[in-house]
Amino acid sequence: MKIAVCRKSHFNSAHRLYNPNWDDQKNEVVFGKCNNPNYHGHNYQMEVWVKGEIDPDTGMVIDLKILKDIIKREIEDRFDHKNLNLDTEEFKTLIPTAENICLVIWKILRDRIEPQLELKVRLFETDRNVVECGSSF
Amino acid sequence: MKIAVCRKSHFNSAHRLYNPNWDDQKNEVVFGKCNNPNYHGHNYQMEVWVKGEIDPDTGMVIDLKILKDIIKREIEDRFDHKNLNLDTEEFKTLIPTAENICLVIWKILRDRIEPQLELKVRLFETDRNVVECGSSF
Amino acid sequence: MKIAVCRKSHFNSAHRLYNPNWDDQKNEVVFGKCNNPNYHGHNYQMEVWVKGEIDPDTGMVIDLKILKDIIKREIEDRFDHKNLNLDTEEFKTLIPTAENICLVIWKILRDRIEPQLELKVRLFETDRNVVECGSSF
Amino acid sequence: MKIAVCRKSHFNSAHRLYNPNWDDQKNEVVFGKCNNPNYHGHNYQMEVWVKGEIDPDTGMVIDLKILKDIIKREIEDRFDHKNLNLDTEEFKTLIPTAENICLVIWKILRDRIEPQLELKVRLFETDRNVVECGSSF
Amino acid sequence: MKIAVCRKSHFNSAHRLYNPNWDDQKNEVVFGKCNNPNYHGHNYQMEVWVKGEIDPDTGMVIDLKILKDIIKREIEDRFDHKNLNLDTEEFKTLIPTAENICLVIWKILRDRIEPQLELKVRLFETDRNVVECGSSF
Amino acid sequence: MKIAVCRKSHFNSAHRLYNPNWDDQKNEVVFGKCNNPNYHGHNYQMEVWVKGEIDPDTGMVIDLKILKDIIKREIEDRFDHKNLNLDTEEFKTLIPTAENICLVIWKILRDRIEPQLELKVRLFETDRNVVECGSSF
Repeated sequence: MKIAVCRKSHFNSAHRLYNPNWDDQKNEVVFGKCNNPNYHGHNYQMEVWVKGEIDPDTGMVIDLKILKDIIKREIEDRFDHKNLNLDTEEFKTLIPTAENICLVIWKILRDRIEPQLELKVRLFETDRNVVECGSSF
Repeated sequence: MKIAVCRKSHFNSAHRLYNPNWDDQKNEVVFGKCNNPNYHGHNYQMEVWVKGEIDPDTGMVIDLKILKDIIKREIEDRFDHKNLNLDTEEFKTLIPTAENICLVIWKILRDRIEPQLELKVRLFETDRNVVECGSSF
Repeated sequence: MKIAVCRKSHFNSAHRLYNPNWDDQKNEVVFGKCNNPNYHGHNYQMEVWVKGEIDPDTGMVIDLKILKDIIKREIEDRFDHKNLNLDTEEFKTLIPTAENICLVIWKILRDRIEPQLELKVRLFETDRNVVECGSSF
Repeated sequence: MKIAVCRKSHFNSAHRLYNPNWDDQKNEVVFGKCNNPNYHGHNYQMEVWVKGEIDPDTGMVIDLKILKDIIKREIEDRFDHKNLNLDTEEFKTLIPTAENICLVIWKILRDRIEPQLELKVRLFETDRNVVECGSSF
Repeated sequence: MKIAVCRKSHFNSAHRLYNPNWDDQKNEVVFGKCNNPNYHGHNYQMEVWVKGEIDPDTGMVIDLKILKDIIKREIEDRFDHKNLNLDTEEFKTLIPTAENICLVIWKILRDRIEPQLELKVRLFETDRNVVECGSSF
Repeated sequence: MKIAVCRKSHFNSAHRLYNPNWDDQKNEVVFGKCNNPNYHGHNYQMEVWVKGEIDPDTGMVIDLKILKDIIKREIEDRFDHKNLNLDTEEFKTLIPTAENICLVIWKILRDRIEPQLELKVRLFETDRNVVECGSSF
C-alpha cells in the first residue's frame, strides 16, 4: 500500500497580476486590485505531498528532513521575501497567479524528487484561496 | 496539466434532523440531540474546488471573483441565517444532514459552473465533522 | 505568581435576535438577518480562563478534569443542540446576543468556581466575531 | 453519487524512532533527535474519512456517533497517553513513524468498517508533518 | 460589567523595511531580508477589540455591522492590495514594521470609535509574528 | 504608548505527572492517565509576548530575529525531543504540569529579556488546554 506524506512550509512575497499584451483597461477588468503597479503581497502557505511505498528499514516514505531541505533550498530561498515579478526568473514573463506559482513549484520539485514517488503541491494564497496541482491522490 | 482551485465560504443556519416516516422514538434513537423539535444550528464552512486547465492569457483556471459571486448568490443568499427545514425549498422533504446539504450545494453549483470544469464541494458542519462530494481529486 | 489556565469547549445552538418592545421594522434595522423568526444557528466556541496560584502538591491551578466536568454539566448540557430563545430559562426575556450569552456563561461559572480564582470567558460566535467578559488578565 | 464523511479525533503519545538492526551511529544519522532513548511525544491529530452512498432513510453515509465510538474504542483507548514503543503490541517490533502509525490505524479501522465503504486515514504528527493512507479520494 | 467584542479582518499588502538615515549595510544588518528594495508582502490578519457596557435594548456593546463598515472603509480600503511604502500617506516616512502598522491602525480607529469605549488592535504579520496595541484588557 | 509583540514557537516532549510523596493510588486519582509510568507526550505550542516602547530608529519593540534566537537556544534546544522528567534539570523534582512548564519557561526568558520590557508566556499543551503566566497585558 502506498502512503502519502506532507511537509508544510511558507514564503512571503510581493507580486502583481498584469498581462503586457492587454491595455490597462482590460488588465483592470480582469485582475482588479491585483493589478496595482506598485505591487501587493501575500504569505503563501505551501503543502508538498509525496506518495510512495514505506521503506521497511526506516518506516518512512521519504526522509522529511531531506524533503524539508529541498523545499528550503529550491522554493523558500528562491521566492521568500522576493518580488515575484522583478526578482525571479520564473515570473519574468509568466503571470504570477496562484495557479502559475503552484505549477512552477510543482515542476521545480518534480525534478528534485525521485521519479517513483508521486508529487502533489497545494498553495494557499490566502486563507480563502487555495490551489493544487500534480498527482491526484 | 489540470490545476484545482478552491474558494472558501460559510453560512450560519438552523436545522433539525427528523424523518416523518418514523415515530418519535426511532427519530430519537437515530438522530439523538439533532432531533430537537425547536432546532439547533451551525456555522457551516464550505470549500468549493474547481479543476481544469490554466487559461494562458489570465493565468487562471476560473476567475475567483466570479466563483465568489456565484457562491454568494446561489449558496450564501439561499442558506445563510435561514432555518433549513422551514425557510428553504431544498429541505422541505429532504433531511438536512451534512451529507444531503453538501450534495444539494454540489448540484446547485454544478449547473452554474462550465461543464468542462470538475467540481468538488467540502462542507464542515463542525470542526470535527466534514463531508465531501463531487469529482474525486 | 499567578498562572492562568484555559479549557476550550463548544456547543451548537439556534437563536434569534429580537426585542419585543420594538416593532418589526426597528428589529429589522437593528438586527438584520439575525432577526429571522424561524431562527438561525451557530457553533459557539468557548474558552474558560481561570487564574490563581499553583498548588505545589499537584502543580496545578485547578484540576482541568474538574473544570471540564463543570463546563460539561453547567454549559454544554444546558445550551448544546438547543434553541436558546425557546429551550432555555436564561434567554426567555434576554436577547441572546454573543455579549449576553458570554455574560450568562460567566455568571453561571462564577458561582461554581472557588472565589479566590479569577474567571474570564471568551466566546466565538463565528471565526470573525468574538466576545469576552470577566476578570481582565 | 458517493459522499465522503470525516470524523476528527486525537491522541497524545510518547515514542522513539529506532531500528534495532542498526548500530547507534546509523540510528542517529537516520532518525536524529527522534532517536532519543528516553522518548519524546506528540499530540497526534487524526482524520478518519469514510466514503459511500447516502442512506435515503437517515440522510447519512455512516452514523458519525457509531464512527466516533469505533475510533474511541479502537484507536484512542489503545494509543492515548501511551508510550507507543513500550505500551502497545503494534509497535513492539514496528518503528512508530507517522507512516507506520497511520497504516496501523487504517488496518485496525478497515476491519471495523463495513467493506462496501471506502476508508482513508490522515494523521498529523505535528502541524507541519502529515501522513495519509487508504483509498484515494 | 464591561464586555469586550472583537471583529476580525485582513488585508494583503507589499512593504519594505528601510531607514533612510542609515547606509545600506546597517539597513541590511537590522532588517535583513525585509530590506529587499523590490518589496515583499504579507496577508495581514487583524483583530479589532472594543470594550464597554452592554446596551440593554440591543444586547450589544457596539453594532458589529457598524464596526465592520468602519474597518472596511478606514483600514481595508486604505491598505488592501497596496504597497505600504509607495501607496499610503501613513508610511511615506514611517517604517512599516508590524508595530508601526498596528499603532497607525489603532490611531485611525481610535478617532472613529466613541470615546467611552476602550480599543485594542492585534495584528498578525504572519502566523508566528503578532503585535498588539491600545487598551490593556 | 507601549506595544506588545509575540513570537510563536513549539517543542515536542514526553512527560509524566507523578508526585513521589504520594502512593500510587493517590497519583492515579489526581493525575489519571497522565500518570502512565512509561510516559506520554505532547506538541507544546508556545507564545512569547514582549511589551515595551517602539524604538523610533527601527520601528521595533524588540528585534524578532533576536527573540527567535533566544527562544531557540534557551527553550527549544532544552526541551524539544526530550523527556521532561528524565532529560532536563528543571523537572527532576518539579512536576511537569503545563502550569509548571510555563512558569519555568517564563523564568528562563525573564533573565534573558531586558528588564524594562514586560514578558508574558502562553503555552498550549493541546488545542484545548492552555496556560499563561507573567505580566498581565
